[in-house]
Amino acid sequence: MRLAPTLLALSLSLALAPSARADTGLDADDIATAEGLRDRAMAGSQAWAVVESLTTEVGPRMAGTPADARAVAWAQAKFTAMGFDKVYLEPVTFPVWLRHHEKAEVLSPFPQPLVITALGGSIGTGAKPLEAEVVEFADLAALVAAPDGSLAGKIAYVANRMVRFKDGRGYGPAVGARSNGAVEAARKGAAAVVIRSIGTSSDRFAHTGTMRYVPEVPRIPAAALSNPDADLLSHMLARGKPVRLRLDISAETVGEYTSHNVIAEIRGRELPDEVVTLGGHLDSWDLGTGAIDDGAGVAITATAGALIGELARAPRRTVRVIAYANEEQGLYGGKAYAQARADSNQIATHQLGAESDFGAGRIYALRAGVDPAAWPVIERIGQVLAPLGIVVETEGGSPGPDVGPIVALGAPWAQLAQDGIDYFDYHHTANDTLDKIDPKALDQQVAAYAALMYLAAESDVDFGSAPPPATP
Amino acid sequence: MRLAPTLLALSLSLALAPSARADTGLDADDIATAEGLRDRAMAGSQAWAVVESLTTEVGPRMAGTPADARAVAWAQAKFTAMGFDKVYLEPVTFPVWLRHHEKAEVLSPFPQPLVITALGGSIGTGAKPLEAEVVEFADLAALVAAPDGSLAGKIAYVANRMVRFKDGRGYGPAVGARSNGAVEAARKGAAAVVIRSIGTSSDRFAHTGTMRYVPEVPRIPAAALSNPDADLLSHMLARGKPVRLRLDISAETVGEYTSHNVIAEIRGRELPDEVVTLGGHLDSWDLGTGAIDDGAGVAITATAGALIGELARAPRRTVRVIAYANEEQGLYGGKAYAQARADSNQIATHQLGAESDFGAGRIYALRAGVDPAAWPVIERIGQVLAPLGIVVETEGGSPGPDVGPIVALGAPWAQLAQDGIDYFDYHHTANDTLDKIDPKALDQQVAAYAALMYLAAESDVDFGSAPPPATP
Repeated sequence: MRLAPTLLALSLSLALAPSARADTGLDADDIATAEGLRDRAMAGSQAWAVVESLTTEVGPRMAGTPADARAVAWAQAKFTAMGFDKVYLEPVTFPVWLRHHEKAEVLSPFPQPLVITALGGSIGTGAKPLEAEVVEFADLAALVAAPDGSLAGKIAYVANRMVRFKDGRGYGPAVGARSNGAVEAARKGAAAVVIRSIGTSSDRFAHTGTMRYVPEVPRIPAAALSNPDADLLSHMLARGKPVRLRLDISAETVGEYTSHNVIAEIRGRELPDEVVTLGGHLDSWDLGTGAIDDGAGVAITATAGALIGELARAPRRTVRVIAYANEEQGLYGGKAYAQARADSNQIATHQLGAESDFGAGRIYALRAGVDPAAWPVIERIGQVLAPLGIVVETEGGSPGPDVGPIVALGAPWAQLAQDGIDYFDYHHTANDTLDKIDPKALDQQVAAYAALMYLAAESDVDFGSAPPPATP
Repeated sequence: MRLAPTLLALSLSLALAPSARADTGLDADDIATAEGLRDRAMAGSQAWAVVESLTTEVGPRMAGTPADARAVAWAQAKFTAMGFDKVYLEPVTFPVWLRHHEKAEVLSPFPQPLVITALGGSIGTGAKPLEAEVVEFADLAALVAAPDGSLAGKIAYVANRMVRFKDGRGYGPAVGARSNGAVEAARKGAAAVVIRSIGTSSDRFAHTGTMRYVPEVPRIPAAALSNPDADLLSHMLARGKPVRLRLDISAETVGEYTSHNVIAEIRGRELPDEVVTLGGHLDSWDLGTGAIDDGAGVAITATAGALIGELARAPRRTVRVIAYANEEQGLYGGKAYAQARADSNQIATHQLGAESDFGAGRIYALRAGVDPAAWPVIERIGQVLAPLGIVVETEGGSPGPDVGPIVALGAPWAQLAQDGIDYFDYHHTANDTLDKIDPKALDQQVAAYAALMYLAAESDVDFGSAPPPATP
C-alpha cells in the first residue's frame, strides 16, 4: 500500500513525459527554464515598446530609401541596447524602386476620382497621363484567355477577390493577378493593368506589393484599386457603356542599393557554432508605418531573443536574431543570408530557423520541417507551448519567406502559425499602423518564440540538415 | 352568451386602440394602409439601388463643384422616374470652397509622412509649404488657456478624442476643436492648427468638416490628422524633443454658386397645401462617395415617398421629399427652404418635418416636437413602428440639420433615431463608400419613414406650428 503513490507517480511521469532525456536532449531544469521564459513574457514583454519605437522613430522604411538606412541604424542601436552579446551587419544588394505619385479618375461616363496605388516595380505612365477605355476580367485566367491583340490601347481590369482565411490561404490564388497581370495584359496589347486589391478589407485603401515584367513582353504600368473603388468600377461597367480612365503614375527603378541584414546573437555556452535563428524583416512598404508587416515580427523575435539573453546561463547553441533587409521586393535579405552561409559552408550548423512575418495575431500552431529523429523535441516543446493555446501540427506549414532560401539549401525550420484572419485587412496598405497591434497578443508570441528557441538551442539533438517533409 | 364575443371584441378594441379616431384622425383602414407600406418596404425596397445609382453615377458631390450640378440633375431625373406627382428645384446660394491638395510630413526628429486633410473652409499654406514646430494641447480648453503670443510661428496640435456612442453624442464635445481651433490657435499667434480627426475609427483616414474664421483674428490653415497619425505625432512629442512639421495645403474660397434643393411631391387628396416633409441632403464631402452621408438619407426618404405615391389613394396632406443642397458647409439648403417658406407665409402649413442624416444604421426610436394635442398620433404611429424594433421616446431628440431652420420658425418635427455606433467611423472620410451600407437596414428605414409620413399626412390632427419641447 505504501508503494502505490510512488508507482502512480512513476506511471504518471512516464505518461506525461513522452520524450525522455535521450530523445529530446532536454531535462526537467531545461523545461522549467523554458516555462519561466514563457511565463515572464506573458506577464508583460517589451515587444510593444520595440515596435512603437520602430514605427515612431523610423516609420515607413521601403528598401533603398533613406529610411532603409535609418531602420538599419535603429535596429543596430536597439539590439545593442537590448543586451545581445554581439550585433553585426551583413550586406544585401538589390535594385531600388521608387514611387513618386499615383492618381486615377474616371473620365466618362461618370467622372470621379479612384483610389489606386502603383504595384511595386511598376513603371509610370510617362510624361502625360494615360487615358483609355477599361475592359473587365473576372480573374487572371479570363485575361489570359482573351484573344491576342484584343486589348490594344485599353486598360485591363482584373476583378478577382481575395477570400479571407485564418491562415491566409486566400492570398496565393488571388495574388497572381498582381504578379502577372501586367505581363498577361501586355501580351494582349493593353496599355496598362489595374487590379482589385489583393486584400480582405473594404476600407478604401489600395494594396501594393510586387509585380514582375519579363524581357519579351512590353512593360506597362500596373496599379491596384482599393476594394470599394473596384466595386465602383465594376458597377459602372455593369451599366454597359464604355468607361474611360485616366491614370497618372510616376514610379521608376533606379540603380542598386546596398542595405544590411542586422544580426544579434546570444552566444551558445557549449555549441556556439550551432545556431537557431528567429527573425522578421526590417523593411516595409512605404504606404503604412510597417507595424504589422513586419515591425511586429522584428519586435517579437528580438524581444524573445533578448529574454533568452537575460538567463543566468545561455543555452548550448547560439540564438541568432535576424532583421532581414528587403523582404518585400524579393526576399533579398533571406537570399543573401543563405548565400553567405552556403559560401562559408555553414548550412549544416543551422539547427532550426523561424520567421515571424504574418502580423501580430496570436499563435495557434507549431509546425516544423525537421529530421524525424528530432520530432520528439518538437513534441516536447509543444507541451511547453500548450498553455499558450498552441497545438503541434504534424502536417503542413512552411518556413517564413526569409527562411525559405536556407531551407532550400537543406536547413531545418519551425513555424509558429499565427491567426491571420485580419492580416490582409491591413497588409501592404496605408492602414498598417501601430494601433492595429494588441500588446497582449505580442506577449503571447514572444512567450512562444522564447520557449521554442531556448529549447531548440538547449537540446543537443540534431534537427537535421536535409529535412524531410513536415510529417514526422 | 351570444353577446360575449361582441363585448370582448369591444373591450379589446378599446384596450388595443388607445388613440380613438377623435384623438388621432386615423381609422383602422389608415393603420392597415400604413402597415402595408411598412411590410412592403421590409420585403425589399429600392433604396439600395437608389444610393448605388447616386454613388456610382455621381459619386462625391461637394457643394459648388461640377459634381454638385450633376447631383441635382441626377436627383431631378431619379425622382421623376420614381413616379412623384411633381419634381421641382429651388435655388440655394453659397460661397464655394475648393480643396486642391494637402500634404504633411514630419521633418525632424523622425522624418515620415502624415495623413491629413484640410478642414472645410480652410485657407492654404501659401506659395511655399509651412514649416514649424508643433505644440500639443490635450483639448480646445487647454489651447484657449495658453498664454497670449505663446504659439508665435508654431503649429498648434489639438489632440482631443471623440468618444463613440450609439447616438453620436461624442461628436458635439469634440467638434469644437475643429470649428474653433484655427481661431483660438491664431489668437495665441500660431501659424497653423492641426487636430486629431473628429471620428471614432482607427483606420488611417483623416476626417474633414467645416471650420470657421472670425473677422478680427488672422486666418491660418487648419487640417485634421487621421487618428493613427495623431497617435504617431503624440508618441513623437512624448519623447520630449522638438517636432517640426511641413504642411503643404492648397485650398481656397472662390466666389458664390447657386445650387438647388430638389423637391418631389405626392399631392394630398384633401389638404394639398398642408405638407409633411422628409429628406436628406444631396451634397457630400469630396473625400468619399457620400454613401452614408448622405446618399443613404436621400435614398431612404425618396424611396419612402415613392412608396406612398404608389398607393391607390394619396393621403390627405401632401408628402414632400426634399434633397437639400449644401448641408455640409452650413445648412444652406435647409436655411433657404425655411426662408422661402417664411417669405411666403407657409410655416404653419408644415405639419411635420424629418430628415435622415445619420448614416444607414437601423432606426430604434421615434421622437417628436409637436403640440401636446397631437401626441396621441405619435403614439399611434409608434404602435405601427414597433414591429420594426422602434420605440416612442417622449424626451430628447432633435430635428435633422436641414429641418432645424424651419423648426426654429415654429414648425413641428419628428425624428427617427438611428443606431450610429459606427457612423463616425466613416463620416466625412474617404471611407464613406457604398459597401458600408447594409441593404436590409435601408429597408427598415424606408419602412419606418413610409409608415410615419403616410400616417402624419393622413391624419388631420394639427401637429402645431409653434411646437413645445419634445416632452408631451
